[in-house]
Amino acid sequence: MPGRKKHSGSPDQVEGRNPVLEALRGPREVFEIYLASAADRSGEIHEILRLAVIESVPVKDASRQRIDAMARTSAPQGVIAKVSPYEYLDLAELLQRISAAESPLVLALDGVEDPQNLGALLRVADTAGVDAVVIPGRSSAGVTPVVAKASAGAVEHVTLAQVSSLPAALERLKSQGLQVAGAEAGGDLPYYDLDMTVPFAVVLGGEGKGLGRLVREKCDVMVSLPMRGHVSSLNVATTGAVLLFEALRQRAK
Amino acid sequence: MPGRKKHSGSPDQVEGRNPVLEALRGPREVFEIYLASAADRSGEIHEILRLAVIESVPVKDASRQRIDAMARTSAPQGVIAKVSPYEYLDLAELLQRISAAESPLVLALDGVEDPQNLGALLRVADTAGVDAVVIPGRSSAGVTPVVAKASAGAVEHVTLAQVSSLPAALERLKSQGLQVAGAEAGGDLPYYDLDMTVPFAVVLGGEGKGLGRLVREKCDVMVSLPMRGHVSSLNVATTGAVLLFEALRQRAK
Repeated sequence: MPGRKKHSGSPDQVEGRNPVLEALRGPREVFEIYLASAADRSGEIHEILRLAVIESVPVKDASRQRIDAMARTSAPQGVIAKVSPYEYLDLAELLQRISAAESPLVLALDGVEDPQNLGALLRVADTAGVDAVVIPGRSSAGVTPVVAKASAGAVEHVTLAQVSSLPAALERLKSQGLQVAGAEAGGDLPYYDLDMTVPFAVVLGGEGKGLGRLVREKCDVMVSLPMRGHVSSLNVATTGAVLLFEALRQRAK
Repeated sequence: MPGRKKHSGSPDQVEGRNPVLEALRGPREVFEIYLASAADRSGEIHEILRLAVIESVPVKDASRQRIDAMARTSAPQGVIAKVSPYEYLDLAELLQRISAAESPLVLALDGVEDPQNLGALLRVADTAGVDAVVIPGRSSAGVTPVVAKASAGAVEHVTLAQVSSLPAALERLKSQGLQVAGAEAGGDLPYYDLDMTVPFAVVLGGEGKGLGRLVREKCDVMVSLPMRGHVSSLNVATTGAVLLFEALRQRAK
């Protein structure tokens, strides 16, 4: 297919209806699709088969047992695709992408290790139209089949940069004019009092650990989510959704 | 313990560090706690043991294997509590609770069936300080150990009403002066253009199915979340978080 890069690495796989469908729609090369013989051919499966024909991707009948044995997620929903490895941007490509954006909106993740949370954040990032998501290379949660599944396939459309040093990347983003806001309980400013209409990166810390010291030192401002309940903590993906949709709200005004 | 009701029903159980801790802090009666002999006694476990002494709750040493065999969630984290059954409010109690609130904020769920989503929504509802969450009685997702776990224990502090008819309950809330807003893709008004400082109930539809016709007919207004991405759909718990934190933002102004 024109515009698709060829890869030499061993193939990756994505699993489930939305992830396979979005892999066909996104830039990754899809080598072949395994479909459970008994799968209902309506809805997403119908669309998967239609796109597979257009893109000349072979579709192989497989038993449920074979699909389940191949799967690396708990619910492959009867469909698995072999795809080219996920392509991360590096720092130079990230900065180029950001310089092309009108009023950049970036999400940076400092050590989000739970693949469910990473997937959920990538889904939110796509839905909120962020220009890029930045994760450190040492992060244990790269784009696995579980992450792709948890993102409902959104990972295929998000610009995801993997950088060797998150503090260094934030410094470069600042020199390109972005304001960097870290989010943590006890931050100085309620998030809604921050002007998010300017070029802007928000940094979220990993589960339980929060932001690292070197990352915090790069933040221009620390924001918090005012809370009212008894438990008073939010999942990192929920925090990300509230912050990014506030940015979208401010930018729509 | 003073103020705690006695129950005749068979005991329920909650599993995991936060859920057991919040059960001790909340109104449910805790009959006994099973703790893995090898569990690290710091952090939440330390606090669980402290509260158990204060409330005279017996703590029984158990092997990891026994805890795992008792568990109804996938990660009991070495601790399970036997507790009194969860107490839902009925419609009359809900209306009484609402009439006592200054500017009520209610979350109504029309057929949210995934226990992970219900738990996540209860956590968000607690964190955002809603006055009550309303679910239909036929809903298959009541408060199970999985829901309690997914809520990080917040379920112990949220006011949860189970009603036989959600449309009838919405009608009663309207007659008590609440504006009822349904959320769905394609709603007339961006959610941030709705005045949420008034007494207010937001209704979210179940996964995939959205709002039922009878529920939609009770809504004064339909709101949507403007989205920008390729996938353009959000998990129902994420949608709930964005809407409830917008209400909190407006009410803080």
